[in-house]
Amino acid sequence: MLAALAARQRRFEVILVHQGAHEEKIRDVLDAAGALGVPVKRVGSKELDAMAHGATHGGVLAVCSAKPLTSEEDLLEMMGKLPAPPMLLLLEGVEDARNLGFTLRSAEGLGVLAVLIKKHVWDLDPVEVARPASGAYERMPLVRFEDTGLIEKLRLGGMRLLGCIAGAKRTIYQADLTGGIILAIGGEKRGLSGAVRGLCDGLLTIPTREGAASLPLSHAAAIVLAEASRQRGKIG
Amino acid sequence: MLAALAARQRRFEVILVHQGAHEEKIRDVLDAAGALGVPVKRVGSKELDAMAHGATHGGVLAVCSAKPLTSEEDLLEMMGKLPAPPMLLLLEGVEDARNLGFTLRSAEGLGVLAVLIKKHVWDLDPVEVARPASGAYERMPLVRFEDTGLIEKLRLGGMRLLGCIAGAKRTIYQADLTGGIILAIGGEKRGLSGAVRGLCDGLLTIPTREGAASLPLSHAAAIVLAEASRQRGKIG
Repeated sequence: MLAALAARQRRFEVILVHQGAHEEKIRDVLDAAGALGVPVKRVGSKELDAMAHGATHGGVLAVCSAKPLTSEEDLLEMMGKLPAPPMLLLLEGVEDARNLGFTLRSAEGLGVLAVLIKKHVWDLDPVEVARPASGAYERMPLVRFEDTGLIEKLRLGGMRLLGCIAGAKRTIYQADLTGGIILAIGGEKRGLSGAVRGLCDGLLTIPTREGAASLPLSHAAAIVLAEASRQRGKIG
Repeated sequence: MLAALAARQRRFEVILVHQGAHEEKIRDVLDAAGALGVPVKRVGSKELDAMAHGATHGGVLAVCSAKPLTSEEDLLEMMGKLPAPPMLLLLEGVEDARNLGFTLRSAEGLGVLAVLIKKHVWDLDPVEVARPASGAYERMPLVRFEDTGLIEKLRLGGMRLLGCIAGAKRTIYQADLTGGIILAIGGEKRGLSGAVRGLCDGLLTIPTREGAASLPLSHAAAIVLAEASRQRGKIG
């Protein structure tokens, strides 16, 4: 909740705190709520449990809007203000909320500006995504794309689209991952879609041992992002 | 099951196949069983369900021993036969079966010879570990260690122990990850134990953005293994 308050992306109506909750345990939340002018209300167990709809709450519960998506326009505006072209991550075919959460966490740590995700991923349970993301879900701008319009726009603006697929001839170590790049990674079942693949400025692979299973999607993402971050130098 | 048969680590008593199962769907399993002299028995749904103890089975079920651990002696013997000193992975504080499975899969793909795991990890459900490992659980030698005796033995034999921890001064990119190395990675909660840390020949960190959450354990493992694999050249 602290990460959500600090990220200032959700709209908070009120924060409900159990009557018996010790001040010192929720001090950080109370401070952050105070700084943002969010009202805090003391309530009993019954009211808290009812609001939690069966989920665990640990004595503190926020009534707030869902984490908002970042629009195309906001992404482009954000990019326009940067001193140098950024690194974006594009994910296709993610089917597991936890793996998406872990991937958002690594993406933040390794210097990704925003993550582009296909429409259907939004069926995943946001609570299950947020937990393993450890705050990164609140902070990382998420942009939903339905067709390739946004990608074409970004490419016209000078961003290179690099697709990671098994069996590509060029490795991630042979490629130039500096400058403005969109790293595209597809799910374990189908890989990158033909539509995204067709727009790629280059296809890259992570070298692995022959006969071994393919790398898990979220590990492949972490590895290519780390290599890009190494090539790009100091993480901003 | 195919990976388990091919890895030849488990002892197979019999393979039970549902009476109605189509030959072509289980052809690979029948062939592998035939080659290894494992008897195959056609049974009804009731018998199959009873043997599965409530787990799903998809019409094929093997009665076999658990995947055996690799002993210290076998590991040392295996290492003695190699043309070049290997890369080993040491994991401490893994608390999630799925993440361990994913990590074994990446470890195999990135060229790890064997994985050393602390005793308590063996409480994890092997079925939950095996599923995300996608066959790597069957093939990867797993060595259980209880104290630091094995590590000291390996170090006397010329292996370097390199610990990955947050905040170390040297990055994984500045370190020499070639030659005989044991890469040690600790859980997200407590990191590496003092006992392992005290034996390390070097401490390394993966550079990440300030203010971001720590990398997930299995992603940190994938990143450092990929960097080692890059430095070591062609994956064997």
